[in-house]
Amino acid sequence: MMIKNEIGIKEVCEYLKEHNNYIILTHSSPDGDCLGSGYALVMILNSLGKKARVVCPDAIPQKFMFFATKEEEFEYDTVISVDLADEQLLTNLIEVYGGKTELCIDHHKSNSHYAKYVYLDTEAAAVCECIYEIANELGVEITLPIARALYTGIATDTGCFKFSNTTPRTHLIAAKLLEIGVEAADINRVMFDTKSKARLEIEKMALQNADYLFDGKAVSLCVSMDMIKESGCTDEDLDGLSVIARSVEGISVAATMREKKPNFYKVSLRTFDGIDASAICGSFGGGGHKAAAGCVISGTEIEAKEKLYAAIKNALEDN
Amino acid sequence: MMIKNEIGIKEVCEYLKEHNNYIILTHSSPDGDCLGSGYALVMILNSLGKKARVVCPDAIPQKFMFFATKEEEFEYDTVISVDLADEQLLTNLIEVYGGKTELCIDHHKSNSHYAKYVYLDTEAAAVCECIYEIANELGVEITLPIARALYTGIATDTGCFKFSNTTPRTHLIAAKLLEIGVEAADINRVMFDTKSKARLEIEKMALQNADYLFDGKAVSLCVSMDMIKESGCTDEDLDGLSVIARSVEGISVAATMREKKPNFYKVSLRTFDGIDASAICGSFGGGGHKAAAGCVISGTEIEAKEKLYAAIKNALEDN
Repeated sequence: MMIKNEIGIKEVCEYLKEHNNYIILTHSSPDGDCLGSGYALVMILNSLGKKARVVCPDAIPQKFMFFATKEEEFEYDTVISVDLADEQLLTNLIEVYGGKTELCIDHHKSNSHYAKYVYLDTEAAAVCECIYEIANELGVEITLPIARALYTGIATDTGCFKFSNTTPRTHLIAAKLLEIGVEAADINRVMFDTKSKARLEIEKMALQNADYLFDGKAVSLCVSMDMIKESGCTDEDLDGLSVIARSVEGISVAATMREKKPNFYKVSLRTFDGIDASAICGSFGGGGHKAAAGCVISGTEIEAKEKLYAAIKNALEDN
Repeated sequence: MMIKNEIGIKEVCEYLKEHNNYIILTHSSPDGDCLGSGYALVMILNSLGKKARVVCPDAIPQKFMFFATKEEEFEYDTVISVDLADEQLLTNLIEVYGGKTELCIDHHKSNSHYAKYVYLDTEAAAVCECIYEIANELGVEITLPIARALYTGIATDTGCFKFSNTTPRTHLIAAKLLEIGVEAADINRVMFDTKSKARLEIEKMALQNADYLFDGKAVSLCVSMDMIKESGCTDEDLDGLSVIARSVEGISVAATMREKKPNFYKVSLRTFDGIDASAICGSFGGGGHKAAAGCVISGTEIEAKEKLYAAIKNALEDN
């Protein structure tokens, strides 16, 4: 079903050719996919002779800097966004850019259609798959720097082709990117197999306080501000912490709670066996995908857990 | 360079069509690739109207049983092997099958050419890639059960497409197997992302006692018999524990020590940046590859650590 402001890939390409001086917005707590698609799009627009830069509410984690382009100063005319399901995810930048997005390129079912035009491919494992196809449709050559950015986005959003969002198309695009010369093993070691001491410390602490729930059908890890401080973790160290809970044997629901400010918990939910993570998170005003979603819950740690665990219990019983 | 007993894919197919009643040998401590290629080949041969069974020196781990075919009893005429670089890897079966292999299908550079004919594709990330191509060449339909076995072998031998052996061909074959309907996410979850509570417990304990050495250039985790007992870990739970130490940021040497019996430590060493793990382990009578080796050190925990850390220090200083 196309909603009235949804456009197809040909219209996206027309739009990109017709406009100039782009700002490309990405979500806060940036990941490989929003940055990979953002910087790949900068390079693609550059090769069309246009100016473009990525604008992100938060600092770019060091591990993604290898594909970041040098920032160019210019007066922007056109605001577009990638991987940004909702304007609220602009956090501190919403006052500057709220209501200004002309074109949004995204893959979230939960996209709130805040932009004038939306290109929405909910079958794409990563927005980088869409950007790859847009480059092909535009006839832009996918250079090695573009390929590195796209590969990083695809690899990180699929857990290196491990998750259920991976499709035949995902692998076909990966094959093309490897042919172009992407150093996949080097990228993957940085993205998946390198942990700081602080990260290992917080993993240990989180496991010490794990709640195994509902006959082992769910597990919940909670990371408090005190634990974060004690471990010395930065935001970057905490990225992707949900893989720990997700790996527990026999679970259908894996919750990772992180105290972002006092009495305010950010929840990452990962689900299996048909449990709908986005429905559980939706009941707290959050959203995401069926197997991976997020929300925020306010209250003390005990209160937040009570609310979350009750919602998980309901979802398990309804399944 | 083709060595005199090497044959091409067309000759492999001719051979398989001309013979009957196959035994397919695999190596000891069987992994996803030898079992995936073995069982896929059983099913392919079955669809040519031939009898075949896998023969492995060790029991098949439970997690691979989902693609294992029901064992058929018959008198064998033809002995072939998959992923078996050398007959010594038959361990206890060498007396029965030594010198009998007619055709070996393999991807190891180190293949010792023990078979009458060898089909050797050293560019293949997994032997399962070869079996996929053989099935296509034979015109045999790759059914869902065959595809599951092949996908498992390819995913496990590449660390789910993470390692440097992954090529464009690897991804192209994965795309085809997903199109056939392989439940990749479910398989990957079992192969890569499922940890028992006991495993998570021992990881936590090991991290609690981590030694960060030589300005962070080395890390050492030690797992005592008491810790193993307290965590409830089985041997299977302890499998691959060295990935934890290996993932620490900035290290050149990662050591994992496991107390196998009182005052007797099994050491797994993983190295980067040119440090030779097999040389360090060799000084204790062990061995292995440059980046991954093992040895045993006797003494109390303190004594074993002193010996090991001195050897690591030397290796770091010499580098």
